[in-house]
Amino acid sequence: MSELVLTTFDWVPEMPRGYVRDLRVRWALEEAGLPYRVESTPFRDRNAGHFAHQPFGQAPWLTDGDVSIFESGAILLHLGERSDALLPADPRGRSDAKEWLFAALNSVEMASLPWSLLMFSGESEGTTAWKLFDGFLKVHRLQHMEKVLAGREWLAGTFSVADILMADVLRLVDRFDGLAAYSACRDYVARTTARPSFVKAYADQMAHFAAADAA
Amino acid sequence: MSELVLTTFDWVPEMPRGYVRDLRVRWALEEAGLPYRVESTPFRDRNAGHFAHQPFGQAPWLTDGDVSIFESGAILLHLGERSDALLPADPRGRSDAKEWLFAALNSVEMASLPWSLLMFSGESEGTTAWKLFDGFLKVHRLQHMEKVLAGREWLAGTFSVADILMADVLRLVDRFDGLAAYSACRDYVARTTARPSFVKAYADQMAHFAAADAA
Repeated sequence: MSELVLTTFDWVPEMPRGYVRDLRVRWALEEAGLPYRVESTPFRDRNAGHFAHQPFGQAPWLTDGDVSIFESGAILLHLGERSDALLPADPRGRSDAKEWLFAALNSVEMASLPWSLLMFSGESEGTTAWKLFDGFLKVHRLQHMEKVLAGREWLAGTFSVADILMADVLRLVDRFDGLAAYSACRDYVARTTARPSFVKAYADQMAHFAAADAA
Repeated sequence: MSELVLTTFDWVPEMPRGYVRDLRVRWALEEAGLPYRVESTPFRDRNAGHFAHQPFGQAPWLTDGDVSIFESGAILLHLGERSDALLPADPRGRSDAKEWLFAALNSVEMASLPWSLLMFSGESEGTTAWKLFDGFLKVHRLQHMEKVLAGREWLAGTFSVADILMADVLRLVDRFDGLAAYSACRDYVARTTARPSFVKAYADQMAHFAAADAA
């Protein structure tokens, strides 16, 4: 097996800590018990080497031997191919986990990210844009996710990368109280983030950035 | 090989025609030369059977024998496993195509969809929300895509599902003149949509909805 190296920022501002996307990768690696090493890339001075790995100048990326992968979804799919703890082995469950992995990113996060950006920006409730994105998230996504999660523990039979992504997406909505009316979604976030793999990944990310403050 | 059946809406309003996501699936199926059949589900009355296949009540979904898949990204990844015309066979190219497939959906469309929704809603330029999402799309995404596409014909060596998704995402931005300052992005949209597979997929989708108007 080739060595897995996760590259994340050396430092980020206080606000996004605990929500930076390297957490998804750390969580999956811990869940699968795959050994890995963490490297840092400068947050403030993003050089050509950074863009060669991540063309949008973001983090994280993962190297697996001589293959370098960006996009949290692509990285988790790649890790899923390396461990049955991340993707079910049976074809039906595997297919379900992959579709939910995409649903987390391209249906739910597609609605939750604009909503969260408006929250961050201090956009006042009542504007046209606020109503548009609040409805997109709640009426078109959370209402449906609530029904799905009321009827099952995990998205695809057993815990998988789909749950890591969906829970991480919903966790940010919860931070801004967006799950207040969706108890099955809140319970789902609670049971996913109670997993030792999440607890360790979260603590490791916070310690990584705290060490940069101290340096 | 099991039979491939694409289910799309029986009818959609004039505005989204030519941009509904079943186009991505039709395009991939045509590109790979995979035989398939199209079925319709009611746009106006979405029943429990619909939600069983697509939990958000959207379209399309694909059935491959007894497996049913929703999410255009998941469907294209599934079809990619069935045809080298959709995913490169060499491991490096295959990994690259998958990461760009996610980048199209979770980095570029993540920024272009909110921008397009504001465009549809008639939000006036100059509002806080407009500036936020216009900057997200242009400064944080298109500026970087412009550099990437200035240096390569296709995202992952050869044409792949990543190009189908990225081109379809950029095509909607182009419709609203959002690519005016990005000539490499415009050229990329032009060369992808000149492919016979796109031309046929587009014509078939338009004919499908036109037939519903006539019915």
